[in-house]
Amino acid sequence: MEKITEVIQSVRLDDINDMLILLDQTVLPNQKVFLELKEMKDVWDAIYHLRVRGAPAIGIAAAYGVYLGTKKSEADTYEELYADFLKVKEYLASSRPTAVNLFWALDRMDKRFKQEEGKSVAEVKLALKEEAELIREEDEQVCKSIGEHALTLLKPGMGILTHCNAGTIATARYGTALAPIYLGQEQGYDFKVFADETRPLLQGARLTAWELKQAGVDVTLICDNMASIVMKEGKIQAVLVGCDRVAANGDTANKIGTSGVAILAKHYNIPFYVCAPLSTVDLECQTGEDIHIELRPSEEITSKWYGEPMAPEDVQTYNPAFDVTDHEFITGIVTENGIAYAPFSESLPKMFKK
Amino acid sequence: MEKITEVIQSVRLDDINDMLILLDQTVLPNQKVFLELKEMKDVWDAIYHLRVRGAPAIGIAAAYGVYLGTKKSEADTYEELYADFLKVKEYLASSRPTAVNLFWALDRMDKRFKQEEGKSVAEVKLALKEEAELIREEDEQVCKSIGEHALTLLKPGMGILTHCNAGTIATARYGTALAPIYLGQEQGYDFKVFADETRPLLQGARLTAWELKQAGVDVTLICDNMASIVMKEGKIQAVLVGCDRVAANGDTANKIGTSGVAILAKHYNIPFYVCAPLSTVDLECQTGEDIHIELRPSEEITSKWYGEPMAPEDVQTYNPAFDVTDHEFITGIVTENGIAYAPFSESLPKMFKK
Repeated sequence: MEKITEVIQSVRLDDINDMLILLDQTVLPNQKVFLELKEMKDVWDAIYHLRVRGAPAIGIAAAYGVYLGTKKSEADTYEELYADFLKVKEYLASSRPTAVNLFWALDRMDKRFKQEEGKSVAEVKLALKEEAELIREEDEQVCKSIGEHALTLLKPGMGILTHCNAGTIATARYGTALAPIYLGQEQGYDFKVFADETRPLLQGARLTAWELKQAGVDVTLICDNMASIVMKEGKIQAVLVGCDRVAANGDTANKIGTSGVAILAKHYNIPFYVCAPLSTVDLECQTGEDIHIELRPSEEITSKWYGEPMAPEDVQTYNPAFDVTDHEFITGIVTENGIAYAPFSESLPKMFKK
Repeated sequence: MEKITEVIQSVRLDDINDMLILLDQTVLPNQKVFLELKEMKDVWDAIYHLRVRGAPAIGIAAAYGVYLGTKKSEADTYEELYADFLKVKEYLASSRPTAVNLFWALDRMDKRFKQEEGKSVAEVKLALKEEAELIREEDEQVCKSIGEHALTLLKPGMGILTHCNAGTIATARYGTALAPIYLGQEQGYDFKVFADETRPLLQGARLTAWELKQAGVDVTLICDNMASIVMKEGKIQAVLVGCDRVAANGDTANKIGTSGVAILAKHYNIPFYVCAPLSTVDLECQTGEDIHIELRPSEEITSKWYGEPMAPEDVQTYNPAFDVTDHEFITGIVTENGIAYAPFSESLPKMFKK
């Protein structure tokens, strides 16, 4: 029987119609809707309303937004076009001012614009399209490389636990932590994946379980507090998670709950791998102590997903969005250039030199 | 400023009107409704529809139900009354056939009935009322004793983490794991309690946070996956949980997620206490291996509390209701007769001999 292996692409250009095709993540998992975005304003809306989430995916969408916005310019000269470009850039920057990757992508488009100095308006517009495509392709390549390296750590039939969503829909394709699962699926590895639902925002239930199921992967949804029992029962042979930021000593910030999973994995003698594009490895940041943890509103815990409040009115909550996993619980950090092992303060810098 | 210390009594007899006053736990935390149950059938309904939950509370309600049912009998002799009594008993037994405590309470009422042999119908009816009251009072005393013993382990101002609901509303009064918190509150201990929300059924959010808030306790609701970060940040000095069953070697079955909390507590060097009435200590059960874990339906994870499904349709789930905490992670088991420490196979039997 042929395996279904539809690895969703959540953000890509429709070259024929010159429009951005974007998976609307806000209606998952109940509806699978691809938006057709032709105008810069549509892209702004999609980023603002979180229809696209995941740092790489946001960056890619913004780059395409720059192209779509600048394309409409009626400028006659390079200089006039650049003035219009800057307005587009500023406008898109306002869509989600806290998203670091958004600014990274906008700046990269700016750099490319400047490299095209002296070119015709039409040539520059084409270069912007090319650059947006390049950003997407590079991200896909990074994810694929992470997947290939991580796959060397896994064996067919393994049970794999993951937390939150570090999947294809957060990136150009494949994702980070889910990349080896997709690549393994293509090769018939038959992994048994367990997805933590990941309270409070349920990215595991809504996104990870959904995208793995779409790809025909054997995925089982569990509540976060069931990680211990599935490990104890021998259902898990490896844990794979993504990350938001890796410090020089290997301490890793990721979605709230990750540090607990890592401590449990160590207790049950299960390897715990962090999949980290080098763009998330911050050698300037010495340890996890230096990473600021964002606190988020009560409503996410008490009422966001519920028809009626499922906690007492005005109950006090504590809702940190991330936690830091101490490097001593991390078996390996998988980057696009290879796998770093302890001591990470020595192995991580080498990853940049390849 | 006077502390508010309303320790809810969820099941009690209104002696003047001869009716059972029962807190409807199905509408918590949005409404605080006390039902007035005058007929045996009302009690049956309340048990069947889970308006009363918690093993001790169910047993107490059933005992009152026996009294209310038998009271209505028009029998003239002891023997005739016993025939009616048996019908009442059988009827109430059908309300929740899996609840062990229900049968324990019904059998105890039966035993009392037999002890009254030769007495008048009026005297026997009064004896049944007395026995139901006794069951309630004994449970309250057991909880209070557990609370007093556990309180010796705690200091004012401590941060305490609890999981699920082992509170006053599950028992006659005070609860088990929450008993020392209420007793401490009455003495101005100013605990800072953190309540795990306890997915999938959210007993921590709906019940524990609610009843502690009612009593004026400083309670903070967190998601289950935040236990690691609150421990790491030094917010927790002790963990208190209830239990469903304790094996002879100290292995303890309790709500799913408890074993993970215990492993984290050990990692962060935080004492982990199980509060266990001796009725839950089963010396015939050698280890946790012998405890059967109930698997429950997917809907509890995927849609029970949500307006619309928050996981993909027909996603595979794994939903164990309980897990077993290995005795090596338990600092002490607090019973009504004192605190058992390792080795539990020696200390637990002694608790029964006091």
